[in-house]
Amino acid sequence: MTTPITRRTALKNLALGAAGLPLLGAPLARAAGAAANGLEASASRLPLAPAFKLGVASYSLRGMPLDNALVAVRRVGLNYLSVNRAHLPWENSPPGWAASVAKFKAAGVGVRCCGVMTLKNDEQAVRTAFEYARTLGVSVLACSPERAALPLVARCVEEFNIRAAIHNHGPEDKVFPSPHEAWAAVQPYDERFGLCIDVGHAYRAGADPADCIRRYRARLHDLHLKDSVANVGAEDTPVEVGRGRIDQRAILQALNDTGYAQMVWFEYEKDGSDPLPGLSESIGYIRGLLVGMGLDAAGQNRLVS
Amino acid sequence: MTTPITRRTALKNLALGAAGLPLLGAPLARAAGAAANGLEASASRLPLAPAFKLGVASYSLRGMPLDNALVAVRRVGLNYLSVNRAHLPWENSPPGWAASVAKFKAAGVGVRCCGVMTLKNDEQAVRTAFEYARTLGVSVLACSPERAALPLVARCVEEFNIRAAIHNHGPEDKVFPSPHEAWAAVQPYDERFGLCIDVGHAYRAGADPADCIRRYRARLHDLHLKDSVANVGAEDTPVEVGRGRIDQRAILQALNDTGYAQMVWFEYEKDGSDPLPGLSESIGYIRGLLVGMGLDAAGQNRLVS
Repeated sequence: MTTPITRRTALKNLALGAAGLPLLGAPLARAAGAAANGLEASASRLPLAPAFKLGVASYSLRGMPLDNALVAVRRVGLNYLSVNRAHLPWENSPPGWAASVAKFKAAGVGVRCCGVMTLKNDEQAVRTAFEYARTLGVSVLACSPERAALPLVARCVEEFNIRAAIHNHGPEDKVFPSPHEAWAAVQPYDERFGLCIDVGHAYRAGADPADCIRRYRARLHDLHLKDSVANVGAEDTPVEVGRGRIDQRAILQALNDTGYAQMVWFEYEKDGSDPLPGLSESIGYIRGLLVGMGLDAAGQNRLVS
Repeated sequence: MTTPITRRTALKNLALGAAGLPLLGAPLARAAGAAANGLEASASRLPLAPAFKLGVASYSLRGMPLDNALVAVRRVGLNYLSVNRAHLPWENSPPGWAASVAKFKAAGVGVRCCGVMTLKNDEQAVRTAFEYARTLGVSVLACSPERAALPLVARCVEEFNIRAAIHNHGPEDKVFPSPHEAWAAVQPYDERFGLCIDVGHAYRAGADPADCIRRYRARLHDLHLKDSVANVGAEDTPVEVGRGRIDQRAILQALNDTGYAQMVWFEYEKDGSDPLPGLSESIGYIRGLLVGMGLDAAGQNRLVS
């Protein structure tokens, strides 16, 4: 299974897969994803399934209490959650966190990230943020640190062995408007200190999301997927994924080509008080696009009813 | 514009289209769709956009009154409706119909079909059904006629110049379980008497939906799109499009290859009391699939926020 998978082989396997040869399914896709993860990865390799998984950023469900949000995640067909403070504040005491962890488990929802955490240069506050992440059992937290806090965050990344991913927040963000500034800021530190590319805010900041994914893949630890009809430089105008200006196809191709094996979070910002229709449309669009592009023939990201 | 469009030409035009040459957009796609409509059509032709349009079968919204249903159609990003009796009974008096027609216009929703109408061999009832269709301004009605009513329906098709499309309803339907029986039944009549293929019920009846589209394209006047996790022969178990067993990719390819230029209706049967999330996911999935397959590069079926 260590033989590099060429486009021709992969296409042949796709056809065989349709004929029902299970051995050529998910395990081979995994091997392909792993191969594509190295710097020698080339666009001519075509895994049978993307190495990344789809999940819901709980900010999308900010208008509902946690219990309802957990039901909603399952209803839209996904199993993974990135927890926002709207559902579990990170300033709470640890006993409160543990009760919620039990709820996630009972609901069958896997927590894989948390954030976006605003981090001041305050040792106690930053340590509390990492303890929260450790309690949730996640291996990465998305954050928006002030510049002076970077060395402190970098020390916690090493001490806790939890990756920190700087989230770019568009033109209004004076520290990290685009992934470019985040990438430059983490260079002095361990590679576990990296990026959470927000494709919508990156676009508004004048950065090309797919290009950023390719350039910064070595430290790409997390990703927020969304769409927007805002012009570059303009205020955010979020819409359902597939209705906006962002080239979703280019983003999925870049994630696939670089062997991105982390989470892709739907952060649906429109319709805060009734987000399910737009969130569902966004998830449906991306799944259809993956299948149509031949990137998910093995049904790795198949939704479950 | 009558030159046949080869795959190579179409791909070249796709690239030019991205560079912003509007003359190569929708009109050329129309021409390609028209060319593909003839019997000489071949799968090697690749229109820039499908000739069909996406709309909502109002049965999906049966749990809400007409006013809310019209808001819902616009919310899910579509502009076309196939009217079910849940929103406008066809047994009503014509004055009631006209008031609803005014509502459709005011909402900016185009009515393009109605049904599925159960038609007994009763001259007055069948004529009323066609008068209803004429009042709505549609050129096709979807129906489920009893066998004895076929000559009567055929006469009305000619008199009203409104196409009638027989809807197959799965194993429980003793007259038209699959498109095969509907196709055989309409052979003695004018070609305007044809089929509304319901892909979900066709699948349950053991018919291959994509194969039926290709075989019966000459009389394919309407289509209900859905998904199901039911086995062949089993009771219906409708799910969100993309989560079930039906090969949506094969269906879209068949519609494209045959130049189908009518409506594709989302008939979402699950979640009758709260259909918007699943309906939206279904629409998103099909739009993403079309874009991923390269069948909607011109954005013919782009949703509008």
